[in-house]
Amino acid sequence: MRLGPRAEIFPSFLRYDFRAVGSQGLVRPRVVLFGDSITEQSFRPGGWGAALADTYSRKADVVVRGYGGYNTRWALFLIQHVFPLDGTAPPLATTIFFGANDAALLGRTSERQHVPVSEYKENLKRIVTLMQDCSNSMVIMLITPPPIDEEGRERSLYGENARKLPERTNEMAGVYAGQCIELAREMHIPCVNIWSKMQETEGWQTLYLSDGLHLTPEGNDVVHKEVVKTLRNAGLKSEEMPYDFPHHSKIDGSCPDKAFQ
Amino acid sequence: MRLGPRAEIFPSFLRYDFRAVGSQGLVRPRVVLFGDSITEQSFRPGGWGAALADTYSRKADVVVRGYGGYNTRWALFLIQHVFPLDGTAPPLATTIFFGANDAALLGRTSERQHVPVSEYKENLKRIVTLMQDCSNSMVIMLITPPPIDEEGRERSLYGENARKLPERTNEMAGVYAGQCIELAREMHIPCVNIWSKMQETEGWQTLYLSDGLHLTPEGNDVVHKEVVKTLRNAGLKSEEMPYDFPHHSKIDGSCPDKAFQ
Repeated sequence: MRLGPRAEIFPSFLRYDFRAVGSQGLVRPRVVLFGDSITEQSFRPGGWGAALADTYSRKADVVVRGYGGYNTRWALFLIQHVFPLDGTAPPLATTIFFGANDAALLGRTSERQHVPVSEYKENLKRIVTLMQDCSNSMVIMLITPPPIDEEGRERSLYGENARKLPERTNEMAGVYAGQCIELAREMHIPCVNIWSKMQETEGWQTLYLSDGLHLTPEGNDVVHKEVVKTLRNAGLKSEEMPYDFPHHSKIDGSCPDKAFQ
Repeated sequence: MRLGPRAEIFPSFLRYDFRAVGSQGLVRPRVVLFGDSITEQSFRPGGWGAALADTYSRKADVVVRGYGGYNTRWALFLIQHVFPLDGTAPPLATTIFFGANDAALLGRTSERQHVPVSEYKENLKRIVTLMQDCSNSMVIMLITPPPIDEEGRERSLYGENARKLPERTNEMAGVYAGQCIELAREMHIPCVNIWSKMQETEGWQTLYLSDGLHLTPEGNDVVHKEVVKTLRNAGLKSEEMPYDFPHHSKIDGSCPDKAFQ
């Protein structure tokens, strides 16, 4: 990492070296969202990615790397491009949010996306390890797959005449969520258990899920709140992070250059 | 610009060299939003920045560089850091959205932010010229300041007992909008005339503005639609731009590596 020309405007007490300027020349640190469609769609109205970008407004850039339909096996083909090991400041934090597709059932309509649960855990471990190789200060956070509303999923896929053979079940999503949580514990990294969290609220099936799998604005809000809580616990409190340039109230209208010195 | 390892997956017919991989190692081109609070707040619920990020999902990253309270004079202190001339792939497109603060009236509560209209135009010209130096293929788009609802502004600043001395007027915002449009014409770059566009709709004062100046979700929607229309006219049609990695439907479940070769 090299220090940028504006390094002097940043306080030095922060855990992360916020002064580091990536070779992309933009001063702000990045938070990368890596995952499947639930990440890809996170900038739709009410989306948790957009909300996160607003939470860290002027403090960090939120970079979305969501790949709809992807499982952890396919994610491994991308990861070295999304997180190169050289030439750039690593992200400040990354969310890893896979499993909804891995947990698609064998013998059903989405079996092409299925990854056995043991391989899912192993793939997640490889993803985390590659990120740790990329940076030892990056906050790496796992997010479990969300719960599944089998009825909603069937209606969405097959219409009202659902043929009652769900391609995903909530029970199976829970098995994958469990492995995700176990891996986080083994690797000593934080994990958002969205599978359990959502099911704490009555009516979660339609309150939080739009088609039995993807998130409503309310579901996005749950993810946003949990991710922010986890980032804050890891030391990334927006209000303690420096603006990339002076707040306008610090600029003297008759002598603005002072604020930028 | 160097070509990335995945250059071969991009078609060659596109005007912009989408194959270029910035040294930040992320494959996607960037659209930068440079402006004041109306840009900074563009990832709030219903925001035009978040909507733009979704429009170009998996095609381009939307990078927000909005600085609340800033005028064009202060923006000039930032611009070389936001748009460095070396070391990185330049943005695919940039929106420049200043003027709301420049147009604050002298002798009123926000006069610290005031910039004379001739200097506003000159500053905008310097910003555009610096960007053109940064890249001759970047789509550079000006956006005029929005209209002002003086009553809404007074209520927001002074409560119901408004003292009837608005710090911004719609007429003055229109003068600055006019200079913005004239500059765009002189420099042969596109301009979104949001000042006029919004006033075409009856009730624009409260339909599009939340406090007489900043945007409601409906106002954000107008900006989003106009910006997308302008980007499309400049050749940046999302549906014609390549995915950074294969769409999941192109991946053979039993032989996924083929899709990534």
